[in-house]
Amino acid sequence: MAERECISGFHAIEETLASGSPGGEMLYSRTTPRIEILIKLAEKKGVDVKKASRETLDKLAGKEMHRGVLLLVPALKLSAGSSSAPRDIFDQLENRQSALVLVLDGITDPQNLGAVLRSADQFDVDLVITPHRGSAQENATVRKASAGASAWVPVLTVPNLTRVLKELKDKGFWIYGAHMEGTRADRIGLTGKTALVMGSEGKGIRRLVADSCDGLLSIPTGGHIDSLNVSVAAGILLYEIRRQGLTADDSFGQKNGI
Amino acid sequence: MAERECISGFHAIEETLASGSPGGEMLYSRTTPRIEILIKLAEKKGVDVKKASRETLDKLAGKEMHRGVLLLVPALKLSAGSSSAPRDIFDQLENRQSALVLVLDGITDPQNLGAVLRSADQFDVDLVITPHRGSAQENATVRKASAGASAWVPVLTVPNLTRVLKELKDKGFWIYGAHMEGTRADRIGLTGKTALVMGSEGKGIRRLVADSCDGLLSIPTGGHIDSLNVSVAAGILLYEIRRQGLTADDSFGQKNGI
Repeated sequence: MAERECISGFHAIEETLASGSPGGEMLYSRTTPRIEILIKLAEKKGVDVKKASRETLDKLAGKEMHRGVLLLVPALKLSAGSSSAPRDIFDQLENRQSALVLVLDGITDPQNLGAVLRSADQFDVDLVITPHRGSAQENATVRKASAGASAWVPVLTVPNLTRVLKELKDKGFWIYGAHMEGTRADRIGLTGKTALVMGSEGKGIRRLVADSCDGLLSIPTGGHIDSLNVSVAAGILLYEIRRQGLTADDSFGQKNGI
Repeated sequence: MAERECISGFHAIEETLASGSPGGEMLYSRTTPRIEILIKLAEKKGVDVKKASRETLDKLAGKEMHRGVLLLVPALKLSAGSSSAPRDIFDQLENRQSALVLVLDGITDPQNLGAVLRSADQFDVDLVITPHRGSAQENATVRKASAGASAWVPVLTVPNLTRVLKELKDKGFWIYGAHMEGTRADRIGLTGKTALVMGSEGKGIRRLVADSCDGLLSIPTGGHIDSLNVSVAAGILLYEIRRQGLTADDSFGQKNGI
């Protein structure tokens, strides 16, 4: 099973099919209106569609829940779903007038990584950068939690995060780290080429990474505990960056989501 | 095991102990500096602390991961952790000048409910209201995902959501439903007594509930898929409500989080 990935969520299957021709095969154990739509879409995309027993699907899905349909695709590297290679996107950032890059310094929980990629899609992040080591890797849980967004968001994995931050600075980016000792995000002007660095769930961003940032951002909070879920914090900061940009440039936000 | 709840996350254990005297007992299979801090805290709070084998902890934790320490507390109703009874808080909302209520119309995923409660704590939500039926109930996953916030946030469960929305209106609240066809949250004045209604993961808010709202709010987005994770969307809208309130009243946001 190392070479095949099993996608079980309706949304994730739909988005994976919509984002290209993933190859592989689709198995279904029953037909409902929703599953019939997925079958038609799969056939249109050249994916083999087969009926199989409920038990076969249970076995393939393993710990994942399924609702009578599975998409089995060749296992992809985290970055393979996007149309341009992440390295090309990175190289071309130099020529951009404005761009938004999200740097993840070691998010280990696949649910959180999925939710972050979903937000990265919704807030038009140009590129996600993550270190090779100490991060969750894309798998069925990430795909499902991302509601299929992981097929769209270009992700560049790098060996050395601080070197990449330096390269981003050379390309004209302002680097902001999310940190509870930072300035409130709504009181800093966040426009132009912006890179947002989010730390890991337990520890936040590493000292060395924080030192490489041009500034630190926080979210004004109250309450009894001391932090937000990392995917919620990332979503709020991406929203704040886009909200400020909206005033200057209304090309983003032509559609609305929830 | 129906009467005891097993808390396994460092953060969740710490916050449960910090929020009061939960009773019950703490079991540990090893000592690390972090676990020693938890043991001291537990002893201070009158919790029985016992050494046990790794196997005992594995068995008690069941599907949950643990790191050598467990807190076993009497199972609480979702509302029992707060200092005032949720019904009393609800009744007193009438006399408040400003208040923030979060209404959850059927969030089924315990990870999402936990993350939402964590945000509710961080954004000083006065009361969370959820229907009896069709919602995730507090359990070990919710507690862990909330990083202990579920012990702090008062939650009122009600049989009929639309009736409660009417009662909130009578108490002077403006009711806003999160809906992709709504007005951008940053273009509506969100001050005074505000209730935010979030729908379920798959379907959003129900028609009948949407019709009971004074207005609908959306988040400006781009991207390929059509929605954010519900806990991320809730976090962004709570942030936006508090951000707007900050201009008028700086008593919130004295501390910053991430």
